[in-house]
Amino acid sequence: MPDHRMNRQIVMAERPSGELALHHFRAEVVPMPERPADAVLLRNILVSVAPGARAAMQGPTHRPQLVPGELIPSSVIAEVVAGPPDGPAPGSVVAGTAGWQEYSVVPASAVRPLEPVGPLSQQLGFLGLNGLTAYFGIHAIAQVRAGETVLVSGAAGGVGHLAGQLARAAGARAVGISGSDDKNRILESKLGYAATVDRRSASFQDDLRAACPDGVNVYFDNVGGPILESVLPLLVKHGRIVCCGVTSHYDLSDPPPGPRDLAVRLIAKSLRMEGFLVADHRPRWDEALRDLRRMHAAGELTILEDIRDGLDSAPAALVGMMAGGNVGQLAVRLAQDPPGRPPA
Amino acid sequence: MPDHRMNRQIVMAERPSGELALHHFRAEVVPMPERPADAVLLRNILVSVAPGARAAMQGPTHRPQLVPGELIPSSVIAEVVAGPPDGPAPGSVVAGTAGWQEYSVVPASAVRPLEPVGPLSQQLGFLGLNGLTAYFGIHAIAQVRAGETVLVSGAAGGVGHLAGQLARAAGARAVGISGSDDKNRILESKLGYAATVDRRSASFQDDLRAACPDGVNVYFDNVGGPILESVLPLLVKHGRIVCCGVTSHYDLSDPPPGPRDLAVRLIAKSLRMEGFLVADHRPRWDEALRDLRRMHAAGELTILEDIRDGLDSAPAALVGMMAGGNVGQLAVRLAQDPPGRPPA
Repeated sequence: MPDHRMNRQIVMAERPSGELALHHFRAEVVPMPERPADAVLLRNILVSVAPGARAAMQGPTHRPQLVPGELIPSSVIAEVVAGPPDGPAPGSVVAGTAGWQEYSVVPASAVRPLEPVGPLSQQLGFLGLNGLTAYFGIHAIAQVRAGETVLVSGAAGGVGHLAGQLARAAGARAVGISGSDDKNRILESKLGYAATVDRRSASFQDDLRAACPDGVNVYFDNVGGPILESVLPLLVKHGRIVCCGVTSHYDLSDPPPGPRDLAVRLIAKSLRMEGFLVADHRPRWDEALRDLRRMHAAGELTILEDIRDGLDSAPAALVGMMAGGNVGQLAVRLAQDPPGRPPA
Repeated sequence: MPDHRMNRQIVMAERPSGELALHHFRAEVVPMPERPADAVLLRNILVSVAPGARAAMQGPTHRPQLVPGELIPSSVIAEVVAGPPDGPAPGSVVAGTAGWQEYSVVPASAVRPLEPVGPLSQQLGFLGLNGLTAYFGIHAIAQVRAGETVLVSGAAGGVGHLAGQLARAAGARAVGISGSDDKNRILESKLGYAATVDRRSASFQDDLRAACPDGVNVYFDNVGGPILESVLPLLVKHGRIVCCGVTSHYDLSDPPPGPRDLAVRLIAKSLRMEGFLVADHRPRWDEALRDLRRMHAAGELTILEDIRDGLDSAPAALVGMMAGGNVGQLAVRLAQDPPGRPPA
């Protein structure tokens, strides 16, 4: 029997040039997707609001570039409505990549079943791609060691607010860069950052030096752009630059050029600059998630969330994030968590 | 009894701004250096002519910046004239860092005794810092694997002409970038480069793509500057950029800015960009030198040398190198090898 319900989506209305704005998006109501035999039909409960969506609107990344009319991509937490007999059971909850829409159809092999405990928003945050990104950035790429100074840009963001805490849990001193004093107060008072710097400060370079008196062992870069040029002279022998994100680039029609002296500095101090994708580390996701759950249970991870209500609030949430307005994990809720999930 | 001989040196006459020229150097005759009890007095046999000398004239690197009147730094191969009783024996031959001069005094602990076999020029080349730099760049930093494509810039230089051969010996396909067709013919006919590209070609970007049909796994960068921007789109997933030198920067008063999209590309392809100094790997020098000797003995390493005669030829040799005029190991001979060194 055909499904006569309709599906609401947020698509890209036009390609942004410069600052992201609401008119770059539009809502559409389309027929429910058909489900091939090896796919699951998902009812989305939460969709993430993350810089990757902005990146895809701008140009090709590890994903192809969006064209107008295409769905905004995102991680989702969803309930399985229907699927193949050997797939996740209807009524169970899974994580996947499905975009800003009420319903989605994805290959059954592409969703990840979730343990039936804890609030689902955590599954988009410290138990989702943001947590895994912070974890592998700090441990696999930076290989942070006790006693080091770890400088995090975009430190109040979905990844940044976790990266600093993971660095601290590894025995390092975390220093945060964010775009406001308000955010920096939260970083220091709630998230264990030892010091913070406001990237909009006129004395940014001096502030940075004062916040990192022993230099910087690891620069965990969530924003890209010219901050690197200020950080480079502070990096000490065998320092690492973790290229995690370039949020500062997306709203510029032409990103700023890289530092003139990058290679000279990389050589003189034997520095390593490395990019990564969380998917590279898939074989170690379960191990990482166990570790993150253990840390959270032990009170070593403070989770900050900003959950908006209703699919139509997603564009404004992303516009606000790009303008520097969010703290912690940003997501949009489409439906309540299913009943009966005990606390984690 | 005081030593009344005099010592001839080449010093920096003035700091270069732009292209290096002979008037940036001058010869000086100074009293023989005093030898502290824990130092050795060396009679230099060969001095290296390497981009590091140009770098030190330009600004601080891992060494402080030279000031006018200071000795041009270099590696040397030298005979020990006098030293402490527990140091290397007078008459023995050592390698060290002593600069462009006839005699030098350095701490006995800072020289490296050499095995009494083989022509001494090899000790500045594939058995010296150039060989070690190529070796650790290819193996420790790039971790080249069989079947990969290794692109080398400055491929005809002291390090580059060895790096390609080491990559090939590791089972990789070596592609060279140099500044002339003449050099490229040598790279392909004598050094086993599978393909070469002339960096002065108007179709450089297309030539590069054609020379690397499967993309680039490793970019071994001896020159810095804008070539990186052309190479970045060719790097494949998990590619590595070995920052070995920035020879193209030294003759510019203001080096060109880095690529705008560096971080984006590092992230999208999980690339690693890493600088190093050969001194970082000192604990593994002996192992590397054994390996290099074995390869040379087995005919796997072809050595190209350009040895000039007399200390006063050093400035012109460096000026010519910076203008792109040399192939292989460049050095200046001050004295003949001591008699009685059997072939290696």
